[in-house]
Amino acid sequence: MSQRPTKPVRVPPTTVQRLPLYLRCLIQAQAHRMPVLNSVQIADMAGTNAAQVRKDFSYLGEFGTRGVGYDVDSLVTNLSKRLGVVEHRRVAIIGFGRLGSALQGYAGFEERGMAVVAVLDADPAKVGTSVDGVTIESIDDLEGVIVRERVEIVVLTVPASAAQRIVDRLVAAGVKAVMNFAPVQLVVPDDVTVRQADMAGELQILSFHLDPGSPAQ
Amino acid sequence: MSQRPTKPVRVPPTTVQRLPLYLRCLIQAQAHRMPVLNSVQIADMAGTNAAQVRKDFSYLGEFGTRGVGYDVDSLVTNLSKRLGVVEHRRVAIIGFGRLGSALQGYAGFEERGMAVVAVLDADPAKVGTSVDGVTIESIDDLEGVIVRERVEIVVLTVPASAAQRIVDRLVAAGVKAVMNFAPVQLVVPDDVTVRQADMAGELQILSFHLDPGSPAQ
Repeated sequence: MSQRPTKPVRVPPTTVQRLPLYLRCLIQAQAHRMPVLNSVQIADMAGTNAAQVRKDFSYLGEFGTRGVGYDVDSLVTNLSKRLGVVEHRRVAIIGFGRLGSALQGYAGFEERGMAVVAVLDADPAKVGTSVDGVTIESIDDLEGVIVRERVEIVVLTVPASAAQRIVDRLVAAGVKAVMNFAPVQLVVPDDVTVRQADMAGELQILSFHLDPGSPAQ
Repeated sequence: MSQRPTKPVRVPPTTVQRLPLYLRCLIQAQAHRMPVLNSVQIADMAGTNAAQVRKDFSYLGEFGTRGVGYDVDSLVTNLSKRLGVVEHRRVAIIGFGRLGSALQGYAGFEERGMAVVAVLDADPAKVGTSVDGVTIESIDDLEGVIVRERVEIVVLTVPASAAQRIVDRLVAAGVKAVMNFAPVQLVVPDDVTVRQADMAGELQILSFHLDPGSPAQ
């Protein structure tokens, strides 16, 4: 009898959402030489509660030691593996405007396991120029670049009007994960995951907290 | 007896997270001249389930009409009010690098109720220049700008090393809502809300979906 279930456990999306934050907190704990943390400590760092931490980690097969806590190194290894930090996911940025260029220069990707291996743009004036060691390629060559660079994740920062057309080509080329910054809802097959960035929505959430339904202040 | 509770209902954070998406879907429904939607239809548009929709809306005092559904116009009005779309929240961007400049030029803010009223930077070469009708001001004048422009929400796109120092000044100046793009955990009093943008974390979540714990493919 194996300890691990033979069928992979389906981890709820809300748990998956919290995993990158847990990993960041645990890496901080490593830096502060804290080898063991209990669920209350982890909850404090991550801004959640202890019961949630225990539930979230149980989905990953991590149960800690009663009365002691979780081994931080082991948690970091487990989470890093699941979040693609270990093998370095291969990322392409499509659309090299202000946002695309900001993301391409974002130092946080590399250290968090994301390698930007290709940058594409439609503008002939940009194609062929080099930025931080990556040469901008033409969107016309999209399919070839995806295959050549074995791209796993695409970051889409193109105008809303172009986004669906490009994502259709990405799907045909076998891409299974897209982070979409274009303010448009993309239609993709079930086996493709799209995450929708929504800057204005983030500010609206802050706005909600400013005035929680009552004429306070 | 009033229909509305006198004490404001505490809306769970996970519900608040979904509100901007609901609002976007409902505005689309308005555009398609759909005056009434039931919870199943709304769930389909928002990518959640009908029970969740009914629960989320009940926190807002919206219960729909049994067998009919929800009045779309009334929902849009309610959500727009709570998310600050009606009164236009006053936003300052601090840090006019590539990301700050991308956000400043983001057309989606205005139409979603966010007015960028000030842009600040530490670089003397940038201070005094104008972008889209907004003149970049010096970070030295932070407190004065916050008061003069009645800034409600700050978007922070400064280097990680500068972020905490600036947020301390913001808190002292009375700012209660901060969207932080700097890759650092900010410490603020309980009455200040910080939302942490985490681009690398977004890609890690995609990565998780690519390989859900089993050596598939």
